[in-house]
Amino acid sequence: MFSATTYTERRRQLANALSSGLILLPANGEAALNYRGNTYPFRQDSHFRYFAGYNLPDLVLTIDVASGEGRLYGNDFTLDDVVWMGEQPDVADLAKDGGLSYGGTLDRLAAALSQSGEVHYLPPYREERRQQLRDWLGHCDRPSVPLIRAVVELRSVKSREEVAEMDKAVATSMRMHAAARDTAMAGMTEASVAGLIEGIAISAGGRLAYPAIVTRNGHILHNHYHGNQLRRNDLLLVDAGAETDTGYAGDITRTFPIGGVLTDRQRPVYETVERAKSQCIQALRPGVAFREIHDLSARIITEGLKDLGLMKGDAGEAVAAGAHALFYPHGLGHMIGLDVHDMEDLGEDYVGYDDTIRRSELFGTRNLRLGRALREGFTVTVEPGIYFIPKLIDRWEADGKHREFINYDALEGYRNFGGIRLEDNVVVTSDNCRVLGSV
Amino acid sequence: MFSATTYTERRRQLANALSSGLILLPANGEAALNYRGNTYPFRQDSHFRYFAGYNLPDLVLTIDVASGEGRLYGNDFTLDDVVWMGEQPDVADLAKDGGLSYGGTLDRLAAALSQSGEVHYLPPYREERRQQLRDWLGHCDRPSVPLIRAVVELRSVKSREEVAEMDKAVATSMRMHAAARDTAMAGMTEASVAGLIEGIAISAGGRLAYPAIVTRNGHILHNHYHGNQLRRNDLLLVDAGAETDTGYAGDITRTFPIGGVLTDRQRPVYETVERAKSQCIQALRPGVAFREIHDLSARIITEGLKDLGLMKGDAGEAVAAGAHALFYPHGLGHMIGLDVHDMEDLGEDYVGYDDTIRRSELFGTRNLRLGRALREGFTVTVEPGIYFIPKLIDRWEADGKHREFINYDALEGYRNFGGIRLEDNVVVTSDNCRVLGSV
Repeated sequence: MFSATTYTERRRQLANALSSGLILLPANGEAALNYRGNTYPFRQDSHFRYFAGYNLPDLVLTIDVASGEGRLYGNDFTLDDVVWMGEQPDVADLAKDGGLSYGGTLDRLAAALSQSGEVHYLPPYREERRQQLRDWLGHCDRPSVPLIRAVVELRSVKSREEVAEMDKAVATSMRMHAAARDTAMAGMTEASVAGLIEGIAISAGGRLAYPAIVTRNGHILHNHYHGNQLRRNDLLLVDAGAETDTGYAGDITRTFPIGGVLTDRQRPVYETVERAKSQCIQALRPGVAFREIHDLSARIITEGLKDLGLMKGDAGEAVAAGAHALFYPHGLGHMIGLDVHDMEDLGEDYVGYDDTIRRSELFGTRNLRLGRALREGFTVTVEPGIYFIPKLIDRWEADGKHREFINYDALEGYRNFGGIRLEDNVVVTSDNCRVLGSV
Repeated sequence: MFSATTYTERRRQLANALSSGLILLPANGEAALNYRGNTYPFRQDSHFRYFAGYNLPDLVLTIDVASGEGRLYGNDFTLDDVVWMGEQPDVADLAKDGGLSYGGTLDRLAAALSQSGEVHYLPPYREERRQQLRDWLGHCDRPSVPLIRAVVELRSVKSREEVAEMDKAVATSMRMHAAARDTAMAGMTEASVAGLIEGIAISAGGRLAYPAIVTRNGHILHNHYHGNQLRRNDLLLVDAGAETDTGYAGDITRTFPIGGVLTDRQRPVYETVERAKSQCIQALRPGVAFREIHDLSARIITEGLKDLGLMKGDAGEAVAAGAHALFYPHGLGHMIGLDVHDMEDLGEDYVGYDDTIRRSELFGTRNLRLGRALREGFTVTVEPGIYFIPKLIDRWEADGKHREFINYDALEGYRNFGGIRLEDNVVVTSDNCRVLGSV
């Protein structure tokens, strides 16, 4: 938690960005695993944490736009709770510590909301929140666009103290990846490596920022199966990031060969992805549209695949047509902060696009989560990849797609290649960018 | 997953236990962490897993009571899904492999339910399920008591193949505890130990069965704070269990001194808890009410505290009055299986009590989750403990509670003691019981 003045200032800026009404920002509750009393590890709502700071469930923050007053609502614990959970602060004390007025119990909140005029809330992503909003307001499907835009504006630009937390998240993530590389060997299961790295994130006082991908089948992009045994010369793709105890995420990917040495078939593909990553990082600076950097990564990948005889023709034309997406069907990166895909709950187009740069409709490029121009203080991922996805190759070949850019015959020898992705996190500085985790 | 015949037989027995209607058993869905696309690790609904076997989200099992026919409903994946998630089996193929009829998509299920007569469902514990039931049936608060009773009857008695999975869960849990004891030392944080043991559960191919308790403040019973640094002579209480990839839980507690040697103040308390655990395990057998074994544990603890001068009077009378509960405010144990508190979602009184043995209303004893007579094949935890909870001591002393059994003056020297709990898991055999994890 930062100082109370940090949160007070954030709330002031948020209130200033709206014209009227009451802003409603509830904390998350506990999430049931297999019965109500057995819960997943608590994960705070990122917006509540950004504007109120507390990492506790079942609190609610309101901000009156006209007066700027922030109020905290919540129910106090009983003596029975103290036996089971230890001493707990009263909500009134929490409010005081956080520079907020104490609003009262959640019943009082419900009464206050029923008498309010316009209430601004964000799109709910858990069913519990939807039910809560229905109970309080009679609806849960009318999120406030002005509030969404104001939150995106504030949270997109990270303060120095936020960047310091991101550095910690990435530094822990790098330790996880170093341990994976030092430990993984033929005969181990993917799960062994997954447990090792998740344990490191927890030992550091936080948790994982997202479910780890630890797979010898890197061509399956969101693959959370960890049951395979590793074999010599496998490419092990590890996409895993720590979340700090303050809630900030790292998102790092490394791909390395079991046995330590890339084969002659793997090396040029790996070097192409590595080149795409480093050249894109060099090209990042304020004012440049991330969409342009994505296109740069796609051209570098296309050139690399041309060198291998897998693609042909003009790289720029191939990228414009979307032919590269057979091998690189995702975007170069996304905003990262309190969420690994920062503010994805608000809607990707609000976060990653604007009136001047709109989302592409091309296969592959349409998955780019961030397109708009970069600003100082943005923190983003840079994560190019090359994958050989047999089902997709078969479909494209059968459909005769992009025959002028793709040598389908040459792909035969790559069907069991898997995939390579390399990912760093950077902060945009005044004149270029800095890779996070390096201080 | 066991063989298809196992699940077919379970479904047959369930249908036979009801007189008419349609049994509705939905799988769990993914649970959102901080936005819909970022989810907690998937946890299957235990009932769905018990009667259908699949560890996949968003499927639904129905069983027609009259015909005994089981149907599987679910939506198939698209080619886009294959790119992101790899090849996925069709629901029709899943159904065939599992000895089920294929019912169709979830739309077809909704239509089928709207035409059904009586639909039996279990109490929902996630808001998503409540919403689903409201959408399908128009209500979510009328769970079927006959279905609850039939499920409790079946799941309470573990088959040999289930007990083998429980042995695996406990064996992994024991490895976690051995690692904690071998590693924990002064200067480390509780989180370091927590990460170590959670990593072992994940490396074994499963996860934790419940959030780990790793604390130098063992007197806080449900303490998930891991931020303290360990100091020499601290008692570290570790309550943690693995869940196997097949979904079965272990639930083991050990308490040990940092530095390896119990102090003179700690040793007699530890030995009392150890004695309570071992004597209770010796007393477990079919036909004995678990409530009696709980009372036995309370008497042993009371005797031990009398030897230390902390309690006085007749142990049996003290326990009958509830005086021991100042030090031992929870129950001796609970059923364990696919859930760490097995079937707690169905209501503890259905699982742990019956018409002959009803829940006590005494403070402490009312927290006993299991009271009824044991049967061969029950798997239960045995977890006595002694705690010194300053807030509770102060309250009881101020209220003058049980002055005839408690020497409040002598407690002054124990206010910073913390707590000790020791826990094993056992299976009730034909003539006594066996500690799990030992084969």
